Amino acid sequence: MSDYSVRDEIAAFMAERNWAQFHTPENLAKSIAIEAGELLECFQWGADADTERVQGELADVLTYCLLLAARIGVDPDQIVREKLAVTRQKYPVDKSRGRSTKYDKL
Amino acid sequence: MSDYSVRDEIAAFMAERNWAQFHTPENLAKSIAIEAGELLECFQWGADADTERVQGELADVLTYCLLLAARIGVDPDQIVREKLAVTRQKYPVDKSRGRSTKYDKL
Amino acid sequence: MSDYSVRDEIAAFMAERNWAQFHTPENLAKSIAIEAGELLECFQWGADADTERVQGELADVLTYCLLLAARIGVDPDQIVREKLAVTRQKYPVDKSRGRSTKYDKL
Amino acid sequence: MSDYSVRDEIAAFMAERNWAQFHTPENLAKSIAIEAGELLECFQWGADADTERVQGELADVLTYCLLLAARIGVDPDQIVREKLAVTRQKYPVDKSRGRSTKYDKL
Repeated sequence: MSDYSVRDEIAAFMAERNWAQFHTPENLAKSIAIEAGELLECFQWGADADTERVQGELADVLTYCLLLAARIGVDPDQIVREKLAVTRQKYPVDKSRGRSTKYDKL
Repeated sequence: MSDYSVRDEIAAFMAERNWAQFHTPENLAKSIAIEAGELLECFQWGADADTERVQGELADVLTYCLLLAARIGVDPDQIVREKLAVTRQKYPVDKSRGRSTKYDKL
Repeated sequence: MSDYSVRDEIAAFMAERNWAQFHTPENLAKSIAIEAGELLECFQWGADADTERVQGELADVLTYCLLLAARIGVDPDQIVREKLAVTRQKYPVDKSRGRSTKYDKL
Repeated sequence: MSDYSVRDEIAAFMAERNWAQFHTPENLAKSIAIEAGELLECFQWGADADTERVQGELADVLTYCLLLAARIGVDPDQIVREKLAVTRQKYPVDKSRGRSTKYDKL
């Protein structure tokens, strides 16, 4: 995320605890999947979910995503923008409008 | 993420395709877990991963996280900051420094 | 799994609690992903994991897999065998021996 | 699963390819989460899913679960049964009947 103060806050939090040693790209990828599972648990039995819990779990996924971006030295906004450009090619407006069909089935 | 231009770009991309109808919080939570699995696949058999592929998968997770944040009306930076404050309480520096132990075991 | 007594035990457990109503294929697929995340959490920071905890989480994934198989009316052993036959075609011994390379890269 | 012929078939398949070397408990836990994500993808945008695709993805999750059980030396049926006994204590019929509420909220 491009709010540098947030990224700096996270970096300081980890530095204080000397936790960078645990944050290999592989461990961070596992952590993102683990937290994504906890976010999904908010919706395990249906669409109704506790909003506060959803916010907390989404924050955990985002935090690990920012840590991984920092660890591999990429700017989160930039990679999202780059990927959006690729997706734009895969899903032309005229073909994909109003449809959730995957690009290889369009 | 607080780079409004990225959030606006994503919103415009979805609006053009009339895809907001598919982006219920539940579907977005599923999508985050699905993309987190693809990110993890970069590390399925070990720590070495193709950096470009990791960037692309991380971008997908981030994009769905931003869509969910927008959908539930929260600011990504703010929820990350709020969660960091909670985690600070759970993991005091003196107890957690240099340890990956979970708070309930500290 | 083909141990009918286990499948029957699970079915009886759910029937007693009238929980089948929650076990749609979609909810079970979410549940499998959620439990898979908890299993992964045993290995979040490294290869060493508490064996008892791993067993418990693996049991949860397996239980939801058996529920989904029953719900869609397939025999777990049979679908595993059928998939193994497909994988055999994708990964000929001579090409894949000792390599973790994905079939499309072989 | 207790169908020994299936377990033996999987073991033989892996032995032929000399793949056991990749099947550490950690890599198998990652693989289960990855395949669980692919299973979930069948339901990404709703409850309707392609049954054949669901069967194939469920088979992949099950196969990695059987490999992990074998790798840590446990019987899949036995751990499922043991976990069911624990769950029985957490969810007494009278309290949990017809409700998807988590045990700690009952």
